[in-house]
Amino acid sequence: MFIVKIGGGKELNLKGIISDLATLQEKFIIVHGANALRDELAQKLNYEKKVVTSLSGYDSVLSSEETIDLMMMAYAGLKNKRIVELCQQNGINAVGLSGLDGKVIQGKRNSGIKVREGGKTLLLRDFSGKPKAINKQLLELLLDNGYIPVLSVPLIDENNFAINSENDDIVALLQTELKTEKVISLIEAPGFLLDKNDPASLVFKMSKAELVAMEEKVEGRMKRKILAIRKLFDGGDTTVIISDGRTEHPILDALNGKGTTIS
Amino acid sequence: MFIVKIGGGKELNLKGIISDLATLQEKFIIVHGANALRDELAQKLNYEKKVVTSLSGYDSVLSSEETIDLMMMAYAGLKNKRIVELCQQNGINAVGLSGLDGKVIQGKRNSGIKVREGGKTLLLRDFSGKPKAINKQLLELLLDNGYIPVLSVPLIDENNFAINSENDDIVALLQTELKTEKVISLIEAPGFLLDKNDPASLVFKMSKAELVAMEEKVEGRMKRKILAIRKLFDGGDTTVIISDGRTEHPILDALNGKGTTIS
Repeated sequence: MFIVKIGGGKELNLKGIISDLATLQEKFIIVHGANALRDELAQKLNYEKKVVTSLSGYDSVLSSEETIDLMMMAYAGLKNKRIVELCQQNGINAVGLSGLDGKVIQGKRNSGIKVREGGKTLLLRDFSGKPKAINKQLLELLLDNGYIPVLSVPLIDENNFAINSENDDIVALLQTELKTEKVISLIEAPGFLLDKNDPASLVFKMSKAELVAMEEKVEGRMKRKILAIRKLFDGGDTTVIISDGRTEHPILDALNGKGTTIS
Repeated sequence: MFIVKIGGGKELNLKGIISDLATLQEKFIIVHGANALRDELAQKLNYEKKVVTSLSGYDSVLSSEETIDLMMMAYAGLKNKRIVELCQQNGINAVGLSGLDGKVIQGKRNSGIKVREGGKTLLLRDFSGKPKAINKQLLELLLDNGYIPVLSVPLIDENNFAINSENDDIVALLQTELKTEKVISLIEAPGFLLDKNDPASLVFKMSKAELVAMEEKVEGRMKRKILAIRKLFDGGDTTVIISDGRTEHPILDALNGKGTTIS
């Protein structure tokens, strides 16, 4: 079994990804994003991001009720169902689920952000959180009966409210719980680049130890990216392939070592 | 087992419906609409309905690819996931599915509408059709394991494309295939009214024979409404309750005979 993470960028070749998957014999679970679609929809609906500055000086984007509405439309609605349709057209009997469905991905809501407003300190709680548990029984029930789960946000929190979360954290939790052999992460880049502006700086192979060593040397965005990859190893040994989702055969390329393979 | 059809109007009391359902011991399947939400979203996105006039003189609204996008956002996305969330908050372990998911509702695409354009006769095929089969195995798999299916359009056609369909036809097909004891249809009216402008004309009880007799006497919109109800009996004996979805306890009211009970 393996997990496929499909990034939410516009340029990913969904048709190529799904038709590649249809040629494989192994079972898999898809986790997909939809950020480009969400941003486009937000713009059309004149939805404005709510950014607040915390007491400690950090800017955060608030996940309001409207943010969750938008997420249900873009992620769990349009993107999820078009991927399921594409799967069916390729003979993959997909079932699309948000984390709410059968509580398949359960999270814990963030405790809130302390902000200063009108001379008072307020605790702002939005609809965001971190994934903490999965409904393994439901995923196995589907997989054992020939269905391929296609998962997306929102998740369900401890009080059964829909919450936003990071897909990297969801994939890491799934990997920890399901101990899959492989995680294929398809992005809008050739793989892991030492210099993000230079495709020639692609790292083809890396050990987990090399990844950890690199994490200690770098800063900022790069550090966060490596952290997200490292989390995928938290649940035990696996192989993580970060590969280009824009090619003609994104999955076959990933499996043939054209991206970055970390094990 | 029973089926609950929740209309897509704005005034339905979803919280009341779901909390009522949580008090019952029986299993059920929800089929919901979202037409008010879809229309609102269409307006915000400046989406225009495409109406064509057929050679035989009938006006039809075309289900374009954009119509299906909108449907995925409004029905399978926002409305479906908010209903699932509400179910979870009431202790109902719901799983929301469109007809595409696990091919749970399969349809046949309409053959097309003949139109005259620029001196030529064209056959316009849109993404609409009629439900023809269900994936009973998947529904039973979910129900047998304690999950409540929450179903919405789009369906999947014979070539695995997403298509639009009438919820009345979907409910009739489900009833035929599953032979449920009851169908509760919640609408924005007290039940079946002999005069749609007079709530006092509510019919509390009706036999199937009386329904058929009435169908022969009336015309237009009323005839179509009765036809939709009559189809629910096509699969065999059942009880159909058409009841007000706007009250404090829509389901309990329906079961207590406050709407129209047909058997």
